[in-house]
Amino acid sequence: MTRPSVDWVEVGPRDGLQSWPSVVATPVKVGLVTGLLECGFRRVEATSMVHPKWVPQLADAEAVLEALQDRIANLRVLVPNRRGLERAQQEGVRNVAVTVAATDGYNQHNLNRSVKETLAEIEELAGLAGRDGIEVDASVSVAFGCPYEGPVSPERVAEVARALADAGIQEIALADTIGVANPAQVETLFAAMKDALPTTRWGAHFHDSRGVAMANLLSALETGVNLFEGSVGGIGGSPFAPGAAGNLCSEDALAMLASMGIETGIDVDHLIEVARSLERTLGARLPGKVHAIQASATGTVSA
Amino acid sequence: MTRPSVDWVEVGPRDGLQSWPSVVATPVKVGLVTGLLECGFRRVEATSMVHPKWVPQLADAEAVLEALQDRIANLRVLVPNRRGLERAQQEGVRNVAVTVAATDGYNQHNLNRSVKETLAEIEELAGLAGRDGIEVDASVSVAFGCPYEGPVSPERVAEVARALADAGIQEIALADTIGVANPAQVETLFAAMKDALPTTRWGAHFHDSRGVAMANLLSALETGVNLFEGSVGGIGGSPFAPGAAGNLCSEDALAMLASMGIETGIDVDHLIEVARSLERTLGARLPGKVHAIQASATGTVSA
Repeated sequence: MTRPSVDWVEVGPRDGLQSWPSVVATPVKVGLVTGLLECGFRRVEATSMVHPKWVPQLADAEAVLEALQDRIANLRVLVPNRRGLERAQQEGVRNVAVTVAATDGYNQHNLNRSVKETLAEIEELAGLAGRDGIEVDASVSVAFGCPYEGPVSPERVAEVARALADAGIQEIALADTIGVANPAQVETLFAAMKDALPTTRWGAHFHDSRGVAMANLLSALETGVNLFEGSVGGIGGSPFAPGAAGNLCSEDALAMLASMGIETGIDVDHLIEVARSLERTLGARLPGKVHAIQASATGTVSA
Repeated sequence: MTRPSVDWVEVGPRDGLQSWPSVVATPVKVGLVTGLLECGFRRVEATSMVHPKWVPQLADAEAVLEALQDRIANLRVLVPNRRGLERAQQEGVRNVAVTVAATDGYNQHNLNRSVKETLAEIEELAGLAGRDGIEVDASVSVAFGCPYEGPVSPERVAEVARALADAGIQEIALADTIGVANPAQVETLFAAMKDALPTTRWGAHFHDSRGVAMANLLSALETGVNLFEGSVGGIGGSPFAPGAAGNLCSEDALAMLASMGIETGIDVDHLIEVARSLERTLGARLPGKVHAIQASATGTVSA
């Protein structure tokens, strides 16, 4: 019998640093991605080809990728549009991620387009990428709830996902962008997606705004999902805005999975060191727990 | 069909404040317990009858209980020994909690006795309490792992729990005192306990040292556990010791349970207000998430 296993996509350098209140220097980013690759991640979302006007934190996308050319096969880059794909192609990127919201309200705020318009762009982009042999992964944001439109139905998520699948995309992550999902909903939504699109590989992307991300991961795992995204240190969301929580913390989740006997291929101890190093570099307490408890755990007794 | 329901014992005033780095004033504690009772908790662990030499933070146990006499039926008090029971009886307490470790190593550090000695004391204490009609709940600390002895076997936990059941105790909480449990272990341990002692009502008490408390709650819930302990704001563990995480945060967990359609009888919005008020009073950021995100959530958009 094979041990159960999970694939983990580390998105901290993109989803974490894109909302960091200051711009992190290029060499720090390169060092972070290098450290993450040393942990064994086969896919690290290194940056985003978004216009610097919108996300100045990632304005150095090309510089980051140029410094990481020897590991380009393990990097994924978020591309918001065709121009983004072209920039990624110029850097030799072999794996891009596209995103579309489950609701028009969020898609308009995030991408300044309707869902339909974004899906049409993605279809074109996926065709262009496919011709070049570039793998395209997609995520559906606000799949569990939207700050503008509230609850989102599984039917709506399936409709958006079907358009992505029709564009040839084989891996689709459902993102709880604002951290409102609960484990019962996670179970229901993934079960519905597997019914609707049985050949798609489903991933899960949780944010910990309400402290439920790890329980949502467990619920997704129990429904058979074995592809997750998270960020080192739990970065994402400003550390200066109380309550603006980040992504599910990669090393906390991977430590839990390891303790459950699930194979991840990741060296968690090394990842903890990467998180500690990042915390020192950023000069702010990161939300993750494992990197902190282990640092002070010698002989610690809780009452 | 009845909706699933969960009983929640709020232990913040005891398990949270006993490790707070400063002594919290008696009126603040009384106000906290009063606020918690207003949320609908039927059992609040208000204080501990431990010797003030060991826990000066709770030296005002009698004063707290005297101020709360009209709600004494809803209060539970931790009693470490016979002298503690006598003090609780003098205050008219009707529900006490006793604790014993799963390992001698932890029990010696925590209670300065072997497990066997503590179990003998508990047996005597339960007899005395029973004669007075006082309900006795028990918890087994370090049931999922010990800082001195490492892993703890289900057989060992069952042995300790059986002694508690033989002493007439009907409710036993398994405590992950140092926050090392994982969801697979939670499932295994509670399944073993139900096999060993099928008539005992099992509870779960998790700490969030590794960010896994909520996933452990979900796992326990799935095995049929419907009795949990937690603390408002996630207090417990010093806010000045990085990584010393507190109890599973009551309002985060209760908000999740409510969103899953599980009845708890608790007014979560009111509990969030109690957490915010406590945060202001203590002057330190509390670990819970929901009270913070809702305070800043108006129109919040996560990328």
